Amino acid sequence: MPWVKTFDTDEVLEKAGVMFASKGFEATSISDLTQAMGINKGSLYHAFGSKRDLFEAVLRKDVMGRQATAFRQLEGMSDPVAAILAIFDGAIAQHEGSPPNAGNLIIITALDLPEHSDGVRDIVKLAVRNLETLFARLIDQGHESGAISGTTGRDCTAKALVALITGCRVFARGTYEVADLLDIKNCALKLLGVNAKLDACEQVA
Amino acid sequence: MPWVKTFDTDEVLEKAGVMFASKGFEATSISDLTQAMGINKGSLYHAFGSKRDLFEAVLRKDVMGRQATAFRQLEGMSDPVAAILAIFDGAIAQHEGSPPNAGNLIIITALDLPEHSDGVRDIVKLAVRNLETLFARLIDQGHESGAISGTTGRDCTAKALVALITGCRVFARGTYEVADLLDIKNCALKLLGVNAKLDACEQVA
Repeated sequence: MPWVKTFDTDEVLEKAGVMFASKGFEATSISDLTQAMGINKGSLYHAFGSKRDLFEAVLRKDVMGRQATAFRQLEGMSDPVAAILAIFDGAIAQHEGSPPNAGNLIIITALDLPEHSDGVRDIVKLAVRNLETLFARLIDQGHESGAISGTTGRDCTAKALVALITGCRVFARGTYEVADLLDIKNCALKLLGVNAKLDACEQVA
Repeated sequence: MPWVKTFDTDEVLEKAGVMFASKGFEATSISDLTQAMGINKGSLYHAFGSKRDLFEAVLRKDVMGRQATAFRQLEGMSDPVAAILAIFDGAIAQHEGSPPNAGNLIIITALDLPEHSDGVRDIVKLAVRNLETLFARLIDQGHESGAISGTTGRDCTAKALVALITGCRVFARGTYEVADLLDIKNCALKLLGVNAKLDACEQVA
């Protein structure tokens, strides 16, 4: 009898992603994965190949799926500054009670990038460049509308926003309080030259 | 015969730290540790207790030792802006060929903070607050000397610098090129209001 797939690929990849994000690639065993995904070992190997191949599939699905959808929504927002702030709010919302998520999986993998396959490395680089490109487009929109200062360099500011968001995600899980993360968000506005909201980040003379 | 310690505690903790940073807490086994540290299992348990206790000792040693020494040197520098840039250069130097290091161990642990003991959580928070405090003191010095703009808020800028450094460290291991990381460093200067070095981060009108 030929092998028949009896599970939803997106759903089991999602569950594998949560497992990888919670234990890390190295510490996640095949039996952790079969348990989390609710499929047996034979089905896992048949459908996805090795643990390394499965990991690559999880990351690719996240970047092409969840990230792409979220980014289309953000690019469609009429106020580019609001869209940038929404990205920060999403990172700040990853507090200590939240389950490990895909954004954090990219960070964990980036920290250990030299140990991963070329395929995984390419996906991590793509995910980070996608976020950077989104910020760059929003900055362009802000330049056009006048919401973002004309002296704000697009490309380097986009990279700095990627770094700030990453710091928020790393420390949102209990290291920093929400008030600390909001301070970081205010500095993102300062970097953009959005003057209206700078009060919190300005020194009282 | 009473148990006699035949190893240098600092040295074996250092080696345990490299192992934890390379595999992560969960994936690091006791035999990984005994091999890396060059001591047997009995000595490890006798001297340090459980894997969790050893991890706490590794982090504490790093924060109280390496971090404290480095910070004293930086606070002693006469030019606070140069000291801040030196911290960025240190993070940027963590390229893909570098071995996993203690700064990255703090980041990996922060990403997974809810899973760790109270002791570990306290040390991670302390390490991050120490870095923030160092930045805050350097900003104070820069305010006094006039090197840093008086409109740069001390506390929120210090936190944003912590976040920017974290982003640099996460992406320095192969995700970003050195040029990208230097762009982020330039944005740190912009955030500080250090006008002399802003060219690279300014939009050409």
